[in-house]
Amino acid sequence: MTMSKFFTERLASLEAYVPGEQPRDRKYIKLNTNESPFPPSPSVIAAAEEEAGRLQLYSDPECKLIVDKLAELYGVDPSMVIVTNGSDEVLNFAFMAFFDEHRTALFPDITYGFYPVFANLNRVPYEEVPLAPDFSINYKDYLGVGKNVVIANPNAPTGLSLSLSEIEEIVASNPDNVVIIDEAYVDFGGESAYRLCEKYNNLIVTGTFSKSRSLAGARLGFGIACPELIRDLNTVRYSTNPYNVNRMTMACGYRAICDNDYYMENCRTVMENREYTRDKLISLGFNVLPSDANFLFAESPDVSGKELYLALKARGILVRHFSKERIKNFNRITVGTRAEMDALLDAVREILGDKNETSGN
Amino acid sequence: MTMSKFFTERLASLEAYVPGEQPRDRKYIKLNTNESPFPPSPSVIAAAEEEAGRLQLYSDPECKLIVDKLAELYGVDPSMVIVTNGSDEVLNFAFMAFFDEHRTALFPDITYGFYPVFANLNRVPYEEVPLAPDFSINYKDYLGVGKNVVIANPNAPTGLSLSLSEIEEIVASNPDNVVIIDEAYVDFGGESAYRLCEKYNNLIVTGTFSKSRSLAGARLGFGIACPELIRDLNTVRYSTNPYNVNRMTMACGYRAICDNDYYMENCRTVMENREYTRDKLISLGFNVLPSDANFLFAESPDVSGKELYLALKARGILVRHFSKERIKNFNRITVGTRAEMDALLDAVREILGDKNETSGN
Repeated sequence: MTMSKFFTERLASLEAYVPGEQPRDRKYIKLNTNESPFPPSPSVIAAAEEEAGRLQLYSDPECKLIVDKLAELYGVDPSMVIVTNGSDEVLNFAFMAFFDEHRTALFPDITYGFYPVFANLNRVPYEEVPLAPDFSINYKDYLGVGKNVVIANPNAPTGLSLSLSEIEEIVASNPDNVVIIDEAYVDFGGESAYRLCEKYNNLIVTGTFSKSRSLAGARLGFGIACPELIRDLNTVRYSTNPYNVNRMTMACGYRAICDNDYYMENCRTVMENREYTRDKLISLGFNVLPSDANFLFAESPDVSGKELYLALKARGILVRHFSKERIKNFNRITVGTRAEMDALLDAVREILGDKNETSGN
Repeated sequence: MTMSKFFTERLASLEAYVPGEQPRDRKYIKLNTNESPFPPSPSVIAAAEEEAGRLQLYSDPECKLIVDKLAELYGVDPSMVIVTNGSDEVLNFAFMAFFDEHRTALFPDITYGFYPVFANLNRVPYEEVPLAPDFSINYKDYLGVGKNVVIANPNAPTGLSLSLSEIEEIVASNPDNVVIIDEAYVDFGGESAYRLCEKYNNLIVTGTFSKSRSLAGARLGFGIACPELIRDLNTVRYSTNPYNVNRMTMACGYRAICDNDYYMENCRTVMENREYTRDKLISLGFNVLPSDANFLFAESPDVSGKELYLALKARGILVRHFSKERIKNFNRITVGTRAEMDALLDAVREILGDKNETSGN
């Protein structure tokens, strides 16, 4: 991209993150950004309206309401919690606070695409560790590396996860570096590492209300860590945007935790639909990685990743395709309602049928 | 503040911004953070509730709804508008994009306290120009300086403003540097510079919905500049937090522009209350700067700034006191409703009376 003549040289090589597309040309079944297919609970909606009547007043920069509620949910002290405008913000704060040319970054080559962007933005050197041939993370690659480690667990876009004991080994073996475990998808079958934050002073666990709690559009993320790391993250927050979480989002997040049962039930439904869809795709010849997240990562021997993505889009179904060489034959498919999954499977059958006809099989 | 052993050395000298206090010990008349005394219009509240029903979906990263509406309001092309999570965010994006060791920063010594924080955060050298003895900005200090200039117009906490022609001279005389005009308070009597953005490729005008539009708690700021600068700011935005503005805030901001008349009427009321209060304070012996903003900056010959601040707080009225040497005898008083202003004036009379009694006058 061409920059203006005023753009600083220090960011000249910056390549921005590219969010999943949001086309406006027609109504799509959106299976491309890992949103929940379920709306927020009624009390969340009521909280938004109630809080909107007080919008002339600044939000609480300490975010006490939601910090205390998260602390209660996770059974930790409030001094171990920070909340942010989506979990991207807490990840960026962590890169700002703890990463530099001496504490460089290490993460998998196939993972959340924002990690290298945050590294470049903060001019932090980074190294990418190739995933194993089966796309799993070999946790031994991260033991005693003397670098700051960032791992999405479950990983995206693969959906594969590490066990809690593997995570603990990584954290314990890098005592002079921070380890960030990004648990955006943990509520769909992963094991959370937040309990380790009381034992290790170098662990930051991040989470989001965007996936399991149906609040992607409200922007609420959080971090759990020992009080010293949280204090540092807050120093950065107060130097960047002290009112980062608005009143409505804070109230919605609070109510969402109060309605925990509703959201955990939705997670169970998504997990059932995921296994249902995975079985069907496998029976259609797909290679589908086992997933602990609210998406499936799948490739077909019969149709290229890009071709499938385009053919689904033409049929009104959006999935996420990545052009990166190693995974370009795959698509990441968000798990939605059973009806959405059936529509996806019908479309896939149609595309594979067309394909076979064209090729004369 | 003590940092953890993991905190990066490059930010070791960072001093975070300190927001106005939000004490929870009792109910206060809040005249300390320049909020509007008027609630949002009813359709803003309805929009929050309606949008809350769609929170499971990400917000539009292009923020098209509100960008287009702001462009319409200001009569500029949508490519000249960026929206952010409060105007602090667009200011920080500008420091990230356009400031470095070659393009250093210049701003008044008495101004919005976040500018030096953003400079330190982005490791940008900066110089502060002393205000004139009457606390005005001498615009000639900023002509042809070869530095990036940041000016709050009206300035805070003084409330004094520069004329549009003075602003234009500053912009025109620094063609190789960006000039940021922070117009957080412009709707209370200042002259906006946004029209100059079509003529100058180095001007960024920032605004907020926090003051005149009763949306401090929703966090909505914006920037207007030529398309090239906006594109650069968006590169930083997409590298930091592409979903920076949540769905509810976007919907609320859109409705607030639709209800423009309501908010402009509120601004007129605030301006009337401001002049009313200024006259009364002057008759009580105060030195009160003439203000184009929704606050007054005032000092009494009879009671120190800190003493007055504390005495008002003890009476349930919060104003903002700054400990900076040059302005420590002043307080910044947000203009509220007529009833709030009368309560303030009563308290001031009481404090001055007590004072006279104690000193035996």
